[in-house]
Amino acid sequence: MIQGPIQTDVAIVGAGPTALFAAFECGMLKLSCVLIDALDEIGGQCAALYPEKPIYDIPAHPSIEGGALIAALEAQIAPFDVPRLLGQRVEALSGHRGAFTLKTSAGETVQAKAIIIAAGAGAFGPNRPPLHGLEEYERSGAVQYYVRRRADFEGKRIVVAGGGDSALDWALSLSELADKIYLLHRRARFRGAPETLARIEEQVVAGRIEKIVPYQLHALHGADGRLESVEVADLDGNARHLEADTLLPFYGLSTDLGPIANWNIDTIRSTIPVTPSTLETSLAGVFAIGDIAAYPGKLKLILQGFSEGAMAAHAIHPIVHPDTALHFEYSTSKGVPAAS
Amino acid sequence: MIQGPIQTDVAIVGAGPTALFAAFECGMLKLSCVLIDALDEIGGQCAALYPEKPIYDIPAHPSIEGGALIAALEAQIAPFDVPRLLGQRVEALSGHRGAFTLKTSAGETVQAKAIIIAAGAGAFGPNRPPLHGLEEYERSGAVQYYVRRRADFEGKRIVVAGGGDSALDWALSLSELADKIYLLHRRARFRGAPETLARIEEQVVAGRIEKIVPYQLHALHGADGRLESVEVADLDGNARHLEADTLLPFYGLSTDLGPIANWNIDTIRSTIPVTPSTLETSLAGVFAIGDIAAYPGKLKLILQGFSEGAMAAHAIHPIVHPDTALHFEYSTSKGVPAAS
Repeated sequence: MIQGPIQTDVAIVGAGPTALFAAFECGMLKLSCVLIDALDEIGGQCAALYPEKPIYDIPAHPSIEGGALIAALEAQIAPFDVPRLLGQRVEALSGHRGAFTLKTSAGETVQAKAIIIAAGAGAFGPNRPPLHGLEEYERSGAVQYYVRRRADFEGKRIVVAGGGDSALDWALSLSELADKIYLLHRRARFRGAPETLARIEEQVVAGRIEKIVPYQLHALHGADGRLESVEVADLDGNARHLEADTLLPFYGLSTDLGPIANWNIDTIRSTIPVTPSTLETSLAGVFAIGDIAAYPGKLKLILQGFSEGAMAAHAIHPIVHPDTALHFEYSTSKGVPAAS
Repeated sequence: MIQGPIQTDVAIVGAGPTALFAAFECGMLKLSCVLIDALDEIGGQCAALYPEKPIYDIPAHPSIEGGALIAALEAQIAPFDVPRLLGQRVEALSGHRGAFTLKTSAGETVQAKAIIIAAGAGAFGPNRPPLHGLEEYERSGAVQYYVRRRADFEGKRIVVAGGGDSALDWALSLSELADKIYLLHRRARFRGAPETLARIEEQVVAGRIEKIVPYQLHALHGADGRLESVEVADLDGNARHLEADTLLPFYGLSTDLGPIANWNIDTIRSTIPVTPSTLETSLAGVFAIGDIAAYPGKLKLILQGFSEGAMAAHAIHPIVHPDTALHFEYSTSKGVPAAS
């Protein structure tokens, strides 16, 4: 939808947990902002990749699922009524500190005084196995890369492919309700915590998980999107046919900075170096927080992204209000404004 | 109680929210730790000063009271079974990176490979008004410096003294259940957010709050710890007697680094400068996080203290495990260990 330019203090590129909390911090400092994300819903990876997977290291949440985390953050920014431009990428950035213009793939124009890039690992997608006819099985849901709803896999015969934590954790989790789990890896050894590997072996003994190692995916057999068997092969080319109706490949994410790579901001291996005290990038007025931001001691933890959002918002305040000293207060003495 | 030395990887000085989350991060990295605090309970200022006051800027908690925040953090570290040395100050620090010895005021000795100072604003206490016989009224509870339980003030006649946010917020909050609130300030103007001041005026009009300005505390009258009136005086010495059974002075906190000032660590105006990427102080192996830590861009927010705790724990890992590379993982792929 094409309309007049959207005017805001801060354009936040991304709508994952770090971006949402940055919007909260902007609101607390009376900076208006908009959220822009390529995905059709807020929440980034938390919503798209692991809405039902518990996270244990969000402070004061002993355990919280990705979807619940996003819901809590959404409630926290509700008083600020932050506009969202979803399902569209930011294609072009022009202008300078205090007066930027962004153009999105949906034709929207956003004019902002400062930019916060909170784009996670950038545009991301699953690494897809190179199999003939794959698209047809993806469309039917016989091949999936994320577990959105565990209940969808009840009674299924599933090939879980991959040797890392995602493959191991989902094999374990789905073994509780699937009819059969084949756990496929091209090496004999899996990469996982000792406790996880021990639990896998218990399920192997119980007959709920069958390890298929060392084998690789070779072909999919079925018709009209209905998967009947997955053909695998060892390094010598010996084939096996696994009777399965579902394939879940966990081969990691491919990430891509996308158009950000063309914004004339210094980048290093798909990350953006920032000044630690402000989170400002090499381009004045453009800040980066969360997994995409790089500085000495950086940890890729959601909670780091939260504190980076607070620091970036404070660093942006003088850009938007150059004549107003920020009278800094704890939220306990100020409170959150009522919903407008 | 005197016993043999306590051996641990990390001694955490403090037991407020930042200290508790640092204990969680130590646990996640398989570093043992102990918490040491001068107060008799965990929670620091959150528990001691505002257990029932809502906090709005903890990520993914749209609103949480201080006491509930501490309870959530306590639940989060429960799997790690962290020993607590409470009601005792750390008096002396000796040794070096990898081999420190701490002595507490209760005679405990702690041997630790690294130290995290998470001592908030240091030892803290209320600024007390210089009134004759004050101690007797403090002991009886007629004079209090913190609102621990709002319900205790139901039906009371209360002098709230002070011109800042604490005085204004508590005057408003307690006006809902007290019989009478006198709001005393030595200047004619209060320091508060416009919205807060407007709400005070509403309560003045409604007769629930009476402003006594510009007046100062002069004397307490009563017997056996039972307060009968508070005598106040203006700048010309003209006296007034306010019939009240309770005095709540909100004159801020006096803070004091205490023995830490003698530990041969660089300090600047009751804060400890640290390297931002590691949170290490000028003394190798000693780290500082939370309000006491200073670095460029530092914000005194609880959420900053959380991320600092994560960074400090990661920086400490090679001190404790010099030969083991830390295989860094998200909690979502690793999970929290079961309670031992």
